[in-house]
Amino acid sequence: MMTLNERFKALEAENAPGQESRQDVNDLDSIVCGEKIEGVPVDFSHGDIDAFPPTPGSVEAWNKGYEMGGEQAYTQYRGSAKILKGVAERISAFTGSPVLADKELIITPGTQGALFLALGSTIESGEKVAVVEPDYFANRKLVKYFNGIIAPIPLNYQGDSSQNGPDLDCLEKTFKEGTKVFVFSTPNNPTGVVYSKDAINKIANLASFYNVTLIVDQLYSRLLYKGETYTHLCACNVLLENIITIMGPSKTESLSGFRLGVAFGTSRLIERMERLQAIVSLRAAGYNQAVLDGWLMEPEEWMKKRVSEHEAIRNDLLKVFRSAGLSVATPQAGSYLFPKLPSLKINTKLFVQLLRYQAGVIVTPGSEFGPTTRDSIRLNFSQDHQRAVAAAKRIVEMINRYQK
Amino acid sequence: MMTLNERFKALEAENAPGQESRQDVNDLDSIVCGEKIEGVPVDFSHGDIDAFPPTPGSVEAWNKGYEMGGEQAYTQYRGSAKILKGVAERISAFTGSPVLADKELIITPGTQGALFLALGSTIESGEKVAVVEPDYFANRKLVKYFNGIIAPIPLNYQGDSSQNGPDLDCLEKTFKEGTKVFVFSTPNNPTGVVYSKDAINKIANLASFYNVTLIVDQLYSRLLYKGETYTHLCACNVLLENIITIMGPSKTESLSGFRLGVAFGTSRLIERMERLQAIVSLRAAGYNQAVLDGWLMEPEEWMKKRVSEHEAIRNDLLKVFRSAGLSVATPQAGSYLFPKLPSLKINTKLFVQLLRYQAGVIVTPGSEFGPTTRDSIRLNFSQDHQRAVAAAKRIVEMINRYQK
Repeated sequence: MMTLNERFKALEAENAPGQESRQDVNDLDSIVCGEKIEGVPVDFSHGDIDAFPPTPGSVEAWNKGYEMGGEQAYTQYRGSAKILKGVAERISAFTGSPVLADKELIITPGTQGALFLALGSTIESGEKVAVVEPDYFANRKLVKYFNGIIAPIPLNYQGDSSQNGPDLDCLEKTFKEGTKVFVFSTPNNPTGVVYSKDAINKIANLASFYNVTLIVDQLYSRLLYKGETYTHLCACNVLLENIITIMGPSKTESLSGFRLGVAFGTSRLIERMERLQAIVSLRAAGYNQAVLDGWLMEPEEWMKKRVSEHEAIRNDLLKVFRSAGLSVATPQAGSYLFPKLPSLKINTKLFVQLLRYQAGVIVTPGSEFGPTTRDSIRLNFSQDHQRAVAAAKRIVEMINRYQK
Repeated sequence: MMTLNERFKALEAENAPGQESRQDVNDLDSIVCGEKIEGVPVDFSHGDIDAFPPTPGSVEAWNKGYEMGGEQAYTQYRGSAKILKGVAERISAFTGSPVLADKELIITPGTQGALFLALGSTIESGEKVAVVEPDYFANRKLVKYFNGIIAPIPLNYQGDSSQNGPDLDCLEKTFKEGTKVFVFSTPNNPTGVVYSKDAINKIANLASFYNVTLIVDQLYSRLLYKGETYTHLCACNVLLENIITIMGPSKTESLSGFRLGVAFGTSRLIERMERLQAIVSLRAAGYNQAVLDGWLMEPEEWMKKRVSEHEAIRNDLLKVFRSAGLSVATPQAGSYLFPKLPSLKINTKLFVQLLRYQAGVIVTPGSEFGPTTRDSIRLNFSQDHQRAVAAAKRIVEMINRYQK
């Protein structure tokens, strides 16, 4: 059992996306190589919702919620029964798997909230939790915070794309050795890899056989590129006794400012998550919940356009990085790119600080996503198209300056 | 160390305020005594923000935040630097104690969020935490959740009002025996007792001497009734190395639907709270934070009116209950009343269910606030005045029916 000091050491957030403004950059002048590189600053640490604004009608939905007054301000902890009903129907249709509105669904403060509640409701102190490397940076922190022990599962993403996905042999070995929880994102954050149908079925079968709880983060499953297919684990033909799926409107739909997420699955776990929510923050902000009334029912053309615009940015950034000789997987979904840097004269964290200081570009160091990707950087390319391309070129220029 | 099952058992929320609609009431018909009592239903489990609407200008502030776009959607985890600056200035003025905007203040998802983060940042597993009985129901649950051990401190509130307050001898004994954290609310929830200047100074001196961390919940400190004075612990003349004060606009200002709270104090603890917030829910919803721009600067007349209207309801409810012979302390601040029931033929939880079923009145059973107050009920009297009085009379009628 860790002391509080140790636990909070594990929660260091200085390099987390969005926290860059709290870093101390006084000493960079002495090591800067060359002049500043001009250009409109781009913050790749998260999506730019000014470039891709929230779903049309969101503000109207919010104001409608506000007008409802007390009923909407004080919902059940798991969220407004009326809103849950609509969301359950649309999630059932989206995933192809029925969700009971009053038993199997909870509205949370963002998908971060859903992850916290899901892992807090399933990790026993001292038990092993399978975590993919690389994967969403908070997964590792959450496991440590809940006194779990990380059992690392390597993700293949840099070679032949038909081999992309988690190392399933390693996963089975880990399950066999007693791991009781497996948390992962598909589409994977930070690489954009979508788990194949075969991989999903294998995971389901292994989890069923070894009685493992699955926490599946599908935050980016709606931003799926041409020719790709998405397999919902919750809809597979295997009886899974303990599964929580997490989604939310913060990314594709640019509704992050509302802090909304949903989790659905095993009712016993949803019940636990609600109990935990009651002491964590009571509920997702009441009026904000009303914005979910428009979720998963956006105009089809609007969604299509949003996906194709992201695909165009993805393609251009891949060109910029690949022309410069960088190794980078093609994201099948989502808006993350995870290029690997060549050998530099400085470490990646310092390079990332210099990128911000010297080139006006904010990215997230690969070390946030696991110990095996310290030489990569993550970009959220949900940005203004031209500015993103220009900023990617500045990254390449910076790599040239600091390359060994 | 508790297992997960044990920890979640301790988090039962079925009787928590606002969760009543999830209770099963099928079996009440067989034990009902007499007919239903007609009247407009009143939910005393929380304030009625339709009777006392949000601060004027809140929606406009929210919309302004929304219009700011990405900058407001993605703030630092501890909240927008600009908003923190204004809030820090106004809190400093309100409490009479300086608060550094960038080091000593965090915006949280409600005061519940602040409590969770504060206790999560200070309770070492297996250590004793002093908790007042009765006090806000989540305090007990939080201590158990964080594997702390509750060291109970009795609150005097039923006798001579000059004796009101925590049992300070018991507190010192507990500190002497190694308790390292003390959490309490003043004004006290559920009784409305305000800790006296002497009590606050004694607590400060004891905490300083025994090196105890203080978590002070001042949620209701602005709703202070005629003739009462409020003492801010954070402003006392004792050097306190570890203190977090919690406030928020959810009550007096009726802004609960925005889920906003603030915590201020020791920078090392605020830093920990931000790290924890990063994995719990990232930040208080971005657009909602903008509503704090109007907080602690409401029109003076509006605040005066709000306080006096609550005082009038308090006085009338006290009359109704005291005329019926019930023992109930006079709340010095806040909007909670905590009458003690006489001996009934049924237990308090069942009586509370029958109140809802038969008389259209929702209250919270005293057992939520500690083990010593099972025979009390809590009312949040921030309600429509006439309906509240009528509902209080129905409570008295129900007591008469079920009295031994």
